[in-house]
Amino acid sequence: MKKLLCTLAISSLTFITSVTAQEFTPKQIEQVSEIRANALNSNLAFDILSSLTTEVGPRLPGTKNDAIAVQWAQDKFKELGYDKVWIEPATFPSWRRYSESGAIITPSAQSLHLTALGGSVSTPKEGITAEVIQFETLDELIAAPKNIAKDKIVFINYKMNRHIDGNGYGPATRARRTGAIEAAKKGALGFMMRSVSTSHHRFAHTGASQYKDGIKQIVKVAIPNPDADQISRLTALNKTVKVNIKVQTEDLGEGKSFNVIGQINGTQNPEQYVLIGGHLDSWDLGTGALDDGAGVALTMAAAKFIADVKRPKRSVRVVLFAAEELGLWGAKAYAKAHAKDKHNIIAAAESDFGADFIYGFQSNVEAASLPVVREIAKQLSPLNIEFIGANKASNGPDLIPLRKLGGLAGFALHTDGTDYFDYHHTADDTLDKVDPKKIQQNAAAYAVFAFMAADADTTIKGKIINLLVLRD
Amino acid sequence: MKKLLCTLAISSLTFITSVTAQEFTPKQIEQVSEIRANALNSNLAFDILSSLTTEVGPRLPGTKNDAIAVQWAQDKFKELGYDKVWIEPATFPSWRRYSESGAIITPSAQSLHLTALGGSVSTPKEGITAEVIQFETLDELIAAPKNIAKDKIVFINYKMNRHIDGNGYGPATRARRTGAIEAAKKGALGFMMRSVSTSHHRFAHTGASQYKDGIKQIVKVAIPNPDADQISRLTALNKTVKVNIKVQTEDLGEGKSFNVIGQINGTQNPEQYVLIGGHLDSWDLGTGALDDGAGVALTMAAAKFIADVKRPKRSVRVVLFAAEELGLWGAKAYAKAHAKDKHNIIAAAESDFGADFIYGFQSNVEAASLPVVREIAKQLSPLNIEFIGANKASNGPDLIPLRKLGGLAGFALHTDGTDYFDYHHTADDTLDKVDPKKIQQNAAAYAVFAFMAADADTTIKGKIINLLVLRD
Repeated sequence: MKKLLCTLAISSLTFITSVTAQEFTPKQIEQVSEIRANALNSNLAFDILSSLTTEVGPRLPGTKNDAIAVQWAQDKFKELGYDKVWIEPATFPSWRRYSESGAIITPSAQSLHLTALGGSVSTPKEGITAEVIQFETLDELIAAPKNIAKDKIVFINYKMNRHIDGNGYGPATRARRTGAIEAAKKGALGFMMRSVSTSHHRFAHTGASQYKDGIKQIVKVAIPNPDADQISRLTALNKTVKVNIKVQTEDLGEGKSFNVIGQINGTQNPEQYVLIGGHLDSWDLGTGALDDGAGVALTMAAAKFIADVKRPKRSVRVVLFAAEELGLWGAKAYAKAHAKDKHNIIAAAESDFGADFIYGFQSNVEAASLPVVREIAKQLSPLNIEFIGANKASNGPDLIPLRKLGGLAGFALHTDGTDYFDYHHTADDTLDKVDPKKIQQNAAAYAVFAFMAADADTTIKGKIINLLVLRD
Repeated sequence: MKKLLCTLAISSLTFITSVTAQEFTPKQIEQVSEIRANALNSNLAFDILSSLTTEVGPRLPGTKNDAIAVQWAQDKFKELGYDKVWIEPATFPSWRRYSESGAIITPSAQSLHLTALGGSVSTPKEGITAEVIQFETLDELIAAPKNIAKDKIVFINYKMNRHIDGNGYGPATRARRTGAIEAAKKGALGFMMRSVSTSHHRFAHTGASQYKDGIKQIVKVAIPNPDADQISRLTALNKTVKVNIKVQTEDLGEGKSFNVIGQINGTQNPEQYVLIGGHLDSWDLGTGALDDGAGVALTMAAAKFIADVKRPKRSVRVVLFAAEELGLWGAKAYAKAHAKDKHNIIAAAESDFGADFIYGFQSNVEAASLPVVREIAKQLSPLNIEFIGANKASNGPDLIPLRKLGGLAGFALHTDGTDYFDYHHTADDTLDKVDPKKIQQNAAAYAVFAFMAADADTTIKGKIINLLVLRD
C-alpha cells in the first residue's frame, strides 16, 4: 500500500511537467494535479463514511434510519460548503425484516445462519419445518417435474464465482430474483438458496427478489456458503435433511424517501453539470459501508476537493440516490424529474462497487468527445488507472434510468471487485472493510474526472443509442 | 502448499538413508517413514472430521448432539479397527443457550451480533436496555469507583492481539472469566465485552466464565470486533449509547457425558501407553471443526496409521475428552479414574489448537528420556517441524489434571495459531476452515510421535515436578 502511494506521488510530480494537454491549458492541468494531490493526502472520504456508518448505521429505505440519513446528508453537504443542497422525493414498495432464524432439524440439530431475501413474506411464528430438496441450478429446478417439491423446501446450491469485475454476480442473482416463483410452481413450501456471495464466512446475502401474480408467495431465504456446503454434504450422504425456517417481515405498502443532492456551481454554464454520486440507502443487515456508503462518501469528498481548488466552468452535482436496493426507485424518480433537462448532464459516473482500488477508466460518449476523454485518462494514469478505449462503458445502476432516456455521456471508473462479494448485502458490510488508503485513490479519481469534465472547453456529449446492463 | 509437500516427500526419502538411530533400529526407522508417508498421502483425518462436523455438528456437553457424538466416536473407533473401545463417565454443570440478540438503540438503531458467554443467566424476554459505560481493560473497571456502573451495561473494549502461539488469548480471557463479577460489584445491569477474537468479521466469541457467590449474577455477552469498534467510535463522539441485550439460557444442573477411548494394543507392554487425543465436545455456535474436531480426527487417524504398519511395543491410546469447554470436566474425570495407574502413561500430547501446520516439537520429560526425544524430533523434521530443546513443554488443556498428579511425560506439537482465534468459539468454526493438506501434516506428526514413543526401547519418563499453564 505504502509502496503504491509513493509511486503515485512521484508519478504525479513527473506528470505535471511532462504533460502536453490539448483540451486543457497548463494552468488547468496544474489545478488537476493539485486536486489529485490534495485528495490523496486527505482522510475526508473515510471520515464522511465513518460518520455515516457510525452515526446513522443501516439505512433500509423508509426506516427511521433512512430519514436520519437524508438529514445527515443535507447537513454534511452544507458543512462541506456546497453551493446548493436540496432533496427530491421518491417512492418505493416499503418492506421490513423483523426477525429471522433457521436450523437443520434432521439428521442432527445445527443452526442455519439464514437471511430473508428482500420482500419475503413471513412464516408462521413457529416457522416452517420441511424436508429439503436440492437443485444445483435454477434451470434444473425449472426443468423438474411439476409436483417434485410438494410440501418441501427447495434449495438451490448454485455457487457464485469470484472475479475482478464481479461477472459472477449476474448469473447468481437469477435464482435470487425468481427462485421462489419457480419453487412455488413445483409445490414448495419455502425457497432457500446458497447466498450470492464469495465469502467463506457464515454471512447470508440478502437482495431484491420477486413474486409473481397468481403464483403462491412462499418464504425465501439465503444461507451462507458454509451452511450450503453442510446441506449439500448431508444430501450427498443420502441423508434426509429437514430444516426449520422462521422469518418475520412486513410489507408496508408505499414508502417515501428522498434523493439528496449537493452542487458545486459552475462559473460559466452552471445549468450544465457533471453528475457523480452513489446511493444513500443500504440493506438493513450491515451498516452499508461498501454498499454504498463508500460511493456516497467518496463522491461527496471529490466535489469538495474540486471546490477547494477552483469552481469549474460547469457545475459538479453529487446525487445520493434513494431506495436503490429495492429497485432503483430514487434513480427512476430522478430520471423522471429531469427528463426535460437531461441535456444538461454533460457526463455521469456512479460509484457503487465498494472502495477497492480503481483500475480502469472507460467512457461511453460520441466520437467528438473522445479527445477530452483521453485527456482525462492521462490525468487518471498517475493513480494507476488504465484507460480502456472501447468507449462502451456501462454505468452504476442508478444511471440506468437516465441512460434509458437516451444520449447520456456515461463513464465507468472500474473498481476492483475481487473481494466485493465477500461483504455485499451481508451483515459483514461494515466500516472496517474499507481501506482508508484505497478510498483516497477513489476520491482522487472521481475528483479528477469530474473537474476535467466540468472544466473542459469542449462539452462532452453522449451517444444517441446506448445498450443497457443491469446491476444493483 | 504443493511446494511444501514436495519438499516433505523428498526430505523423507533422503532421511531414510542418512539417519543413524541410536534408540531405534533401522527397521523401526523404516516403519516410521512408512507411517509418515502413508499419513501424508491419506485423507482419513479430514474425512473423519467431515463426518463428525457434518453428521453430528455442534456438540455442547449434555445435549442430544453430545450423546450422538459419543456414539459416533465409538462407532468410528471400531470402524477404524481399534483393538479396544470404551467409554468413561464425566459430569459437569450443564447449560443451554436458547436464543440471543442485541441492538444499539441510541443514537440510531443498529444490530449487535452478540453471543452469551458460557453460563450466562437470561435477561427478561424483552431484554435489558441501558446506557453503555466503556472501560478499556478489566483493571480499569476494577479500579473505578463503587457505583460507577449503576443501572448501566459495562463494556470492556480490550482487544486481543494476534500471535503464532496464541499468547494474546490468556490476557484477553481475564475479562471473560471475571468481568461480569466485577461489573456487578460496580452496580451494572449487564456485562458486555469485545470478543476474545482476532477476527474482523461479525462473529462473537463465547467461552467459559464465572459468577461468584454473594455477587449478583448479571447477563454477560461478547460482541464481535466490528461491533466493538462501532460502540467505541460512538462513545469517542461523546454520544450516549444505549443497547438492548436479549438472552435466553438455562442452567440445567449436573449433566453427564463420556470420555470416549480407543486403543491400539501394544505387543510387549500393553498396559503402558502413549496418550494422544483431543476433546469431543464443542461450543454450540459453530460445528467445532477447529475446536476441537480437528484434534479428535487427526489423533484418531494417527493411531490407525500406526496400526496399519505395526503394533508398537506399548499401546497407543486415543482419549476423546468430554466437556472440555465447560471446564475440563472429562479430563478431571479421567485423571481421577486413572490416578492409580498414571505411571502407565509413558508419554502424552493433546491436539487442541486447530489444524494449521505444526511448526515445533517440545518435550517435558526427565533428562534420561532426552535421547529418545531427540530421535523422535529427527523423524518429525521432514515434516518441517523444528525441535525446541527447552524441555519445558506445556500441554493441551485436557492434560492439565493429569499433570497435576505429577510425573507426566508431556509433549507439545506446536500448531501455528496465527489464525486460530479468527474462528475459535464462534459460529464461524466450520469444516471449510480446515485445510485438508495441513491436517495431513498434523496427523503424520502425531503418528510419528506416538509410534516412536510407544515403540522405543527406553521407556520415557516425566519430571517429578511440573509447572502448569492453563488454556481451554
